Amino acid sequence: MLLIPHYVEHPFYSNPALHLLYISDENRVVPFQNAIEQVVSEGCCVAEIGAGCGILSRAAARAGAKKVYAIEKEPEILRFAERVIISAGMQDSVSLIFGSSFSISLPEKVDVLIAEIIGGIGNDEGISSVIEDARGRFLKSGGAIIPKKIDVFICPVCAEEAYSQISSVYEKDLIVAPYEARRPFKAYYEIIGMPPSELLSKPERLDAIDLYGHTEIFFRRKFRFSVSRNARFTGFAAWFVTELTGDVILDTSPWAPPTCWGQSYFAIKHTVPVVRGDVIELIFSAMHDKQAKRPYYVWEGTVNRKAGNKKPFYESNFQGEIEALEPEKRAIG
Amino acid sequence: MLLIPHYVEHPFYSNPALHLLYISDENRVVPFQNAIEQVVSEGCCVAEIGAGCGILSRAAARAGAKKVYAIEKEPEILRFAERVIISAGMQDSVSLIFGSSFSISLPEKVDVLIAEIIGGIGNDEGISSVIEDARGRFLKSGGAIIPKKIDVFICPVCAEEAYSQISSVYEKDLIVAPYEARRPFKAYYEIIGMPPSELLSKPERLDAIDLYGHTEIFFRRKFRFSVSRNARFTGFAAWFVTELTGDVILDTSPWAPPTCWGQSYFAIKHTVPVVRGDVIELIFSAMHDKQAKRPYYVWEGTVNRKAGNKKPFYESNFQGEIEALEPEKRAIG
Repeated sequence: MLLIPHYVEHPFYSNPALHLLYISDENRVVPFQNAIEQVVSEGCCVAEIGAGCGILSRAAARAGAKKVYAIEKEPEILRFAERVIISAGMQDSVSLIFGSSFSISLPEKVDVLIAEIIGGIGNDEGISSVIEDARGRFLKSGGAIIPKKIDVFICPVCAEEAYSQISSVYEKDLIVAPYEARRPFKAYYEIIGMPPSELLSKPERLDAIDLYGHTEIFFRRKFRFSVSRNARFTGFAAWFVTELTGDVILDTSPWAPPTCWGQSYFAIKHTVPVVRGDVIELIFSAMHDKQAKRPYYVWEGTVNRKAGNKKPFYESNFQGEIEALEPEKRAIG
Repeated sequence: MLLIPHYVEHPFYSNPALHLLYISDENRVVPFQNAIEQVVSEGCCVAEIGAGCGILSRAAARAGAKKVYAIEKEPEILRFAERVIISAGMQDSVSLIFGSSFSISLPEKVDVLIAEIIGGIGNDEGISSVIEDARGRFLKSGGAIIPKKIDVFICPVCAEEAYSQISSVYEKDLIVAPYEARRPFKAYYEIIGMPPSELLSKPERLDAIDLYGHTEIFFRRKFRFSVSRNARFTGFAAWFVTELTGDVILDTSPWAPPTCWGQSYFAIKHTVPVVRGDVIELIFSAMHDKQAKRPYYVWEGTVNRKAGNKKPFYESNFQGEIEALEPEKRAIG
């Protein structure tokens, strides 16, 4: 088990070291390559948004695309993509485009749209709004999108080992420097290799993202979990299962082979001993922060103990002014 | 066409950005993975020397190895390997070992030895001495080695575009900072995407490295090239073709799909116009430098022009005291 910072919380997409970790993950790359093999046919046009060092754009070119538009807004990683495209002799078929997909236009409509900008809980990186915009402007009618849909799940956990590492999570990290640490309970994390035995209940679906339709990025949803055994409740784990296309599934649940996403971990500051039959009520909000370019999250609720006493919890990764409104005394439930 | 510094000349093996380029190269990684699939069978033991971020060690584990010893002497890249091994859930089968293979010992002998420390002209990174040592101490009798053999070729070229970029090669490089630049004709380079049309003669075999036997790292060999057409002679291109195992070949010649190695480029300071039938005599030396841990090279010779006049050339990537012995007046041929 390894606890790492959630890199979505840190603006490190230009860091080659982060991409080294991403493309080293076969359990991430191979399903995408398989989906591309299924969908991209000889002579078609493809756009990839968030191409990074271009691994999926190159897969599209190898699958027979006559033109791949590889869009990337981080110039440093785009330079690596350029080198690799030249090294692969793909300069003619893969065109690198520098910029945000929202601000660029393409010279032609494409048959396939690809975006691996899936956050640990789906829309952390705003994939649904990126695709919604690009679908209208870049994709031919009847064109294909990879991924098709993303289901996100959440479940209370007894993750004692992860919990114990929260205060030191930045100390040995490969990407985020310790001076960029966020306050321990003002961030969410990734658990790499969480055993399924740490789950305390049946998971609930937190979000359902349809890349062919419209999905709200900001929401406030309520859940009720029945605790299945005596343990210590230390927070929530969340993960996604995405249908990339056809029958290609990428599953980041605790039961599936591990990936670089791990499971997102939303810790609670004051852990609560629970027994079988206790009920954990959760209100999970994805909220808009005018300064940040991505949602921030609030996970709040109450542990209703059979023993009688209710234990409220309230945490958020928001780093700004809303904290003034967030005393632990705030009435919930 | 892209001219880049030869990274073997620069001690950057700890740089994640360099490994990002290496593992982005499918034409490098896939043949090694195929060779590993062929040779590694269920339950066998493997050692990899120079494991980097562990991509080949993980391939060996996936191929069924019960234990892979992944040896790496650069601590920074070993930390990435560790993260990736944990992310892949392979902690039990892949053991990371920090250190130079010469100074470590293994708890058991292995069935397969893997090393992707192939320099652009074969022994630049000392693969034959590394394997010779490891073969005796790590490998079971009858065990397999990947790669099996490496043939290195060299040929005079008219590489005008590469030649014109020599003075600016470090300016836009992704790995080597400009202040670490070597003097233009005191280094050799890599040409990514050199067209075969730039060759001026039939290539000759510069070196033949047998990983099951003994190969001299230091040598002095003479070649005679007959120029095939009128052009400007700008130096020599060299490349390798390696038999990884069985029928898996990795070919870095100008005729093969491009790889991150490109072709090594040994430029000459004063280019020479040549015509069909001129003869280029080359003495290529791989020499021992007591300070450096790798060979340095001298490429010297004479262009024998049908027109009658002989043009000597003498270049070396040696940065030390031998330069005192290296006036262009030195008598050759």
